[in-house]
Amino acid sequence: MQLVNTINDLRQIVKQWKIDGLEIGFVPTMGYLHEGHQSLIKRAVSENDRVVVSIFVNPMQFGPNEDLDSYPRDLDCDIDICKQESVDLIFHPQVSEMYFNDFSTLVDMSGLTDVLCGKSRPNHFRGVCTVVNKLFNIVDADRAYFGQKDAQQLAIIKRMVRDLNIDIEIIGCPIVREEDGLAKSSRNTYLNEKERQAALILNRSLMIGQKLLSDGERNAEKIINAISENINREPLAKIDYVDVVDSLSLKKANNISSSCLVAVAVFIGKTRLIDNFIFEI
Amino acid sequence: MQLVNTINDLRQIVKQWKIDGLEIGFVPTMGYLHEGHQSLIKRAVSENDRVVVSIFVNPMQFGPNEDLDSYPRDLDCDIDICKQESVDLIFHPQVSEMYFNDFSTLVDMSGLTDVLCGKSRPNHFRGVCTVVNKLFNIVDADRAYFGQKDAQQLAIIKRMVRDLNIDIEIIGCPIVREEDGLAKSSRNTYLNEKERQAALILNRSLMIGQKLLSDGERNAEKIINAISENINREPLAKIDYVDVVDSLSLKKANNISSSCLVAVAVFIGKTRLIDNFIFEI
Repeated sequence: MQLVNTINDLRQIVKQWKIDGLEIGFVPTMGYLHEGHQSLIKRAVSENDRVVVSIFVNPMQFGPNEDLDSYPRDLDCDIDICKQESVDLIFHPQVSEMYFNDFSTLVDMSGLTDVLCGKSRPNHFRGVCTVVNKLFNIVDADRAYFGQKDAQQLAIIKRMVRDLNIDIEIIGCPIVREEDGLAKSSRNTYLNEKERQAALILNRSLMIGQKLLSDGERNAEKIINAISENINREPLAKIDYVDVVDSLSLKKANNISSSCLVAVAVFIGKTRLIDNFIFEI
Repeated sequence: MQLVNTINDLRQIVKQWKIDGLEIGFVPTMGYLHEGHQSLIKRAVSENDRVVVSIFVNPMQFGPNEDLDSYPRDLDCDIDICKQESVDLIFHPQVSEMYFNDFSTLVDMSGLTDVLCGKSRPNHFRGVCTVVNKLFNIVDADRAYFGQKDAQQLAIIKRMVRDLNIDIEIIGCPIVREEDGLAKSSRNTYLNEKERQAALILNRSLMIGQKLLSDGERNAEKIINAISENINREPLAKIDYVDVVDSLSLKKANNISSSCLVAVAVFIGKTRLIDNFIFEI
């Protein structure tokens, strides 16, 4: 496995792979890899001749009061996991390699970005779209793998790829959970023991919504209320949002008539966690 | 020469060229080709194995009160010129092929877009960046050719390519002029006889600025004033802007100490014309 820090070095390697007719899978990450990332990597390895994992904590997608500085990092552990999963190349650039001082360009989106997480994290998805666009141009992969846990991110990236005619296949992979149901996240490391227990409220409340939908409920407001009420029973939890939207356009669904995304963001103490499910109709 | 209307058809052809190891030059245009475009095409043909010319009047770069509907079009004539210049492929998509109804993504820039033409044409360069980004992704060329006449566009596209790590070489080509000095432009066709004569004021006034710079003048204000005064002598001319900026960052140059772009935009009657020169230091 190669560890590469510069865009030029990466390009040299990828160009040779292309000449050799090899197909490339790409898993963009911010590192601190967990079983969620591992599931993406496993899938990429199974579907491609070569796999690139990028590890880059992208400053552009963090707000001024967010956790850029404290975001967990452990490159040695990430390297071990990638080796174990037979990754071919880790791309681990410095911020200065990715952003010149006079960096001026941005990739952004209207509509899909001003709901859900986009509401409470202004410019977050602008940062995501811009860095993912850059990484796609750098890695030149055939397929890229994203977790369904960041459902809005996945929908936005699919839209960006379609709109800008980026020649890459976007593959969404299921949420990976702890045994007790908590969605795997690098940010789970912020939780103390009590908060870790309280964090179960996200998945448990979503399951109430899922039950309602399975039983035929199609009124979004009722589903939102049922989920919210259950989350509010947990004293350590503070709701950021609970919402039901169309799974492709992310538009508000009042009467649910097509596949919908049911998504929550909840502060457990100071840690903001997200979880969701898609209900197919 | 092939005439292709769909992205899929274009991609099939380009993929085969890539497999065959051929290098691709790309000349994006809005059609109504003149000798300015022809000079770009000639250069592309001389430097590449295959040349693609796109002809697409991009609605996204026109403002609500601009000339989208009246913008001159003549596909048959464009085809003749491309054949004559040994172009391999014309890409001529419909608007619906380029923009879905729920198109949501945009590529934009800060800094370089809010000066010169960007001031009087808000969102123009957002439209340019977005469509050029799309076209680059579609055509997958090795080199793209742009005219120096649209100096701000050229600087912005170079910046976009650098910032987003697009793997393409951007080549700027000199302004092509009529014998009497008027810069070639598809919009020259809007001019009546009197206006056509009055339009000479752009180049003639720029030459006054060029003389001042050659004589050692480094005060931008003095150069701007000399050019403006000369333009104002022409009764049919109305200045949109006269400016001196750094040729790379497009930042205002007060005391000129590095290569600068001297650019003008002038209404001749209802027709807005632009012209410029770069002074190397």
